[in-house]
Amino acid sequence: MSRQFVVTGHDVPTTPEFSLDDLPGGAGRLDLLARCVTSALVLSHGLREDVRVHLVLADEYTVTFDGGALRNFNPDERSTAARVRNALEEREEAIGHVPVETSPGVSLSRMGFEATVESAAQGGTVVQLHENGDPAVDVDPPTDPVFVLSDHHDFTDAESALLDDVADQRLSLGPKAIHADHAIVVAHNYLDTDRYTSY
Amino acid sequence: MSRQFVVTGHDVPTTPEFSLDDLPGGAGRLDLLARCVTSALVLSHGLREDVRVHLVLADEYTVTFDGGALRNFNPDERSTAARVRNALEEREEAIGHVPVETSPGVSLSRMGFEATVESAAQGGTVVQLHENGDPAVDVDPPTDPVFVLSDHHDFTDAESALLDDVADQRLSLGPKAIHADHAIVVAHNYLDTDRYTSY
Repeated sequence: MSRQFVVTGHDVPTTPEFSLDDLPGGAGRLDLLARCVTSALVLSHGLREDVRVHLVLADEYTVTFDGGALRNFNPDERSTAARVRNALEEREEAIGHVPVETSPGVSLSRMGFEATVESAAQGGTVVQLHENGDPAVDVDPPTDPVFVLSDHHDFTDAESALLDDVADQRLSLGPKAIHADHAIVVAHNYLDTDRYTSY
Repeated sequence: MSRQFVVTGHDVPTTPEFSLDDLPGGAGRLDLLARCVTSALVLSHGLREDVRVHLVLADEYTVTFDGGALRNFNPDERSTAARVRNALEEREEAIGHVPVETSPGVSLSRMGFEATVESAAQGGTVVQLHENGDPAVDVDPPTDPVFVLSDHHDFTDAESALLDDVADQRLSLGPKAIHADHAIVVAHNYLDTDRYTSY
């Protein structure tokens, strides 16, 4: 079973002129998006090879990390943010929706939120993770889930409207609203332990 | 119900002469310990006020973050690591086991793993989180749990021997071995959703 995560970052830069020393500020909470990548991909002893993470950068570009193809991946925020910055340096190479591989397992494409969600949905079933969704414990998980999450902001009206159209489920993973990177960890645990069913 | 997390960092520095630009390398995986603090303390809309995290630095010092007293806390690794570094700058002020508050909600004490675990255990019941532990889904949670975790290394023999003595439970949170910061997220979710019971 493959798993995909789409995380929409509303404030992150779309050019590489930002400092790795100020990810929360100057880089528009790229620290959070970097942690989402790590949450989605790392295990204690290696990577989750059947997982892809798509970071949507200000509805303009998307950087995809493929756990099956990544090499020399480190779990800290700074090195992940550096890969995003490196990817943005090659943004002129991304023509149409065709992705450019900027390092092994990392690619950039000129796609905003809608195109990215629709592309990911071709390989699975879209699930919106949201603090006001239905409790995940009451729901059977789809095969090949595509979890869509927002950064520290809520989804915009346009994003919500799209998700209303394409998402099969709108789920909450618990009674407390948690950060996107933590929601990814919990979603994995549900799927890993098969607790993602009613009981 | 209070929750405590003790994370033992075997390779982290015990002096403040390290760069915030190289947390995985020169700072001995302080990036991981910083993420543990964030995993333990943050919610989407504020901090978990009933949670304390104790980072054991190379069995020599312990830096404690108290969610009920922290101010201006940011969830990125760099700013958390900076608080650890600032705490180490005042290490000469820590006499005996008496903690020194180095910023609101952050304190440093001259305590290694054993003293920290035993101190935390006075306020709750020790649970060892370990990939080879019993499945958490089969176990009732203690009141006021004190979860003890290790960094990217396994517990040392001495740490394991201590935990064998003081821990009531040795639990695994799922079939896949995950990083300590992710285990903290899952532990919180168990407790938040009351799924931490047999079914």
